[in-house]
Amino acid sequence: MLIVQKFGGSSVANPQRIARVAERVKNTVADGHRVVVVVSAMGDTTDDLLALAGRVSPNPSPRELDMLLATGEQVSSALLCMALEARGCAAVSLTGGQAGIRTDGIHSKGKITEIDPTRVRAELERGRVVVVAGFQGVSPAGEITTLGRGGSDTTAVALAAALKAGNCEIYTDVDGVYTADPRLVPEARKLDTISYDEMLELASLGAVVLHPRAVELAKLYAVPLVVRSSFHNGPGTLIKEGGEMEQAAAVSGVAHDANVAKIGLFDVEDQPGVAARIFQELARESINVDMIIQGAMRGGRNDIAFTVSRDDLPRALEAVRRIQDQVGAKGITYDEGLAKISIVGAGMVSYPGVAAAMFEALAEAGINIAMISTSEIKVSCAIRREEAERAVRVLYRKFELGGDA
Amino acid sequence: MLIVQKFGGSSVANPQRIARVAERVKNTVADGHRVVVVVSAMGDTTDDLLALAGRVSPNPSPRELDMLLATGEQVSSALLCMALEARGCAAVSLTGGQAGIRTDGIHSKGKITEIDPTRVRAELERGRVVVVAGFQGVSPAGEITTLGRGGSDTTAVALAAALKAGNCEIYTDVDGVYTADPRLVPEARKLDTISYDEMLELASLGAVVLHPRAVELAKLYAVPLVVRSSFHNGPGTLIKEGGEMEQAAAVSGVAHDANVAKIGLFDVEDQPGVAARIFQELARESINVDMIIQGAMRGGRNDIAFTVSRDDLPRALEAVRRIQDQVGAKGITYDEGLAKISIVGAGMVSYPGVAAAMFEALAEAGINIAMISTSEIKVSCAIRREEAERAVRVLYRKFELGGDA
Repeated sequence: MLIVQKFGGSSVANPQRIARVAERVKNTVADGHRVVVVVSAMGDTTDDLLALAGRVSPNPSPRELDMLLATGEQVSSALLCMALEARGCAAVSLTGGQAGIRTDGIHSKGKITEIDPTRVRAELERGRVVVVAGFQGVSPAGEITTLGRGGSDTTAVALAAALKAGNCEIYTDVDGVYTADPRLVPEARKLDTISYDEMLELASLGAVVLHPRAVELAKLYAVPLVVRSSFHNGPGTLIKEGGEMEQAAAVSGVAHDANVAKIGLFDVEDQPGVAARIFQELARESINVDMIIQGAMRGGRNDIAFTVSRDDLPRALEAVRRIQDQVGAKGITYDEGLAKISIVGAGMVSYPGVAAAMFEALAEAGINIAMISTSEIKVSCAIRREEAERAVRVLYRKFELGGDA
Repeated sequence: MLIVQKFGGSSVANPQRIARVAERVKNTVADGHRVVVVVSAMGDTTDDLLALAGRVSPNPSPRELDMLLATGEQVSSALLCMALEARGCAAVSLTGGQAGIRTDGIHSKGKITEIDPTRVRAELERGRVVVVAGFQGVSPAGEITTLGRGGSDTTAVALAAALKAGNCEIYTDVDGVYTADPRLVPEARKLDTISYDEMLELASLGAVVLHPRAVELAKLYAVPLVVRSSFHNGPGTLIKEGGEMEQAAAVSGVAHDANVAKIGLFDVEDQPGVAARIFQELARESINVDMIIQGAMRGGRNDIAFTVSRDDLPRALEAVRRIQDQVGAKGITYDEGLAKISIVGAGMVSYPGVAAAMFEALAEAGINIAMISTSEIKVSCAIRREEAERAVRVLYRKFELGGDA
């Protein structure tokens, strides 16, 4: 079988850990599999490079940041290859560009548009393990582009899809997907399987094991995803169509994202196209908007509020200020101290009153809700960041997520 | 004028120095020039990466070492660009491959076969400073290849040739080319100009300011080279056709190289093709052989000795051992404790007895000569390494190199 294995930064943080990854890859090869490995940058490398950039420029351009940051994964891929070769395991490292990963060229948050697997296939044919630098690709013009958050997970899934791999294994420092963050809720339970949709909601909502982009792509190409620990041999959690959670209770998991900022525009003109104008401007800057609420009209005026990742707040504010006059907004407010807390479950649609139960539980705990957003299988609330951990525990107990395990 | 400026590792060793380089480049632009910058890796980066490689593999492959080491120059080029942009100076960094630098694909000691300057020209047309990662290029197969010793100097000269630049400035931590190493001979004199040929001999002989490959290339394409200090604004030394030294005395400079190893094969068969067989095997390993001597025949047997760089000794010994039986050598000896000391001067051909005077001076100082090699404008002797510095001083005085300055 062809297996894609992805190892995150903590799994390759130092030469000892790289050696351990090499042993694991070698064992997979010894079991008769062909292996493509995707690696992140070693440990804190990306942060170190960003700090260095900060010392030469207050505001480095995304293009040059990409040139700088892409070296991190190139280093770890070359080192892992050396460690494999030292163990008699033929291997070759490839940059994203060499591995045929083409992007849309948007620096610092590029999207994969296409994978040309010719080179990777040729190397596999020659009996080599192929180690690909994650998180990067090249644009049609040959520019190095990083893929932004979750980029290495996305590289792994995209390669698995393009190569029609039997499995895509994501190695991380947790041993699978839990019904809640086990650091906050000690009785949280590890799931053996979970559906793409549920994982997608959990991932979108801040469960850090997998990036939603990667899950989305896996669902689209039906790539079986396995989340496993890089430190021991547990089976992890398998993500595929259908899964354990769907048959279970209305609410199957609680997630939180502690990095939420809110921007509000008040007294916006109530004209067609105003919301479009605002969110087009943000899209042009490649800023993801999460929750959006639009207030009741008062005399032809509107309030619009939305949340973005806290990291994107300065750029989002700039964008909004550029178009403030165009949309006739009287003022702009923002709050960078929020978190998003969510409950997820495919069964939710058939259990009315789940959202109400969530609001009630939060109210009983004295936790104020700033914004609400819902989908068919989740309910999210923006709350004060400092109350997020308590809210996770409150909801976990409310919906009895510990199960019998 | 189009100027290529090359900054070595010590010139970009930290953010403060990168800022200083950015100021200098910006000033050159303000003077009305277009500028292409070539940078080495920051300070000890290359050594740090090599140490990391040593911790994952006892014998990393040259291909993976190239993947690893090429990141060093990519980092410094991106950082310099950020520093330029922070000063309002439009700039773009390019990897060797993006800058159109094509190599023969020999890992760890690639040679530049061709430069496609399309992208660099286009960026210059757009009014940008182009910062190129030195020391690297890509093979026709798209493999990242480093250029080995002197690679960044060579990148700079090759780009200057391809772009028909008016000047190629090499910034370093010395302020020009001296008649001898000023650390050994305090009265050594800085030269204002020197010819390519003389610089070539000085460079080949261990004067560390410029790599002979770069000088050779500059001569071939008549690129005016300037060696200047990156720490102050002195005019440096201009290297061009004809120069100050040629009109001067028979001997114009003394150089030494402290990293010399000797290999001897004794009782080799006296057959045609034996020497060719030995040196082909070394060439296949891309090992440069410097001095070669072949001893007098005794009954159809021969001794052959040659010198290589001390770093190449282990690989050279391996190569020689592989073919020992084929060439019928009874034994192999080696000595890694040698240095090469040389006198150089274009006037030498017209002054007979210069070599004899050199041998005499060394003999008077009690310094034993292990090997001798001569060209039209230089005489070199291999001697014990620990006597090298004393030999430089002896010869400096013998040939009165201090001048009137």
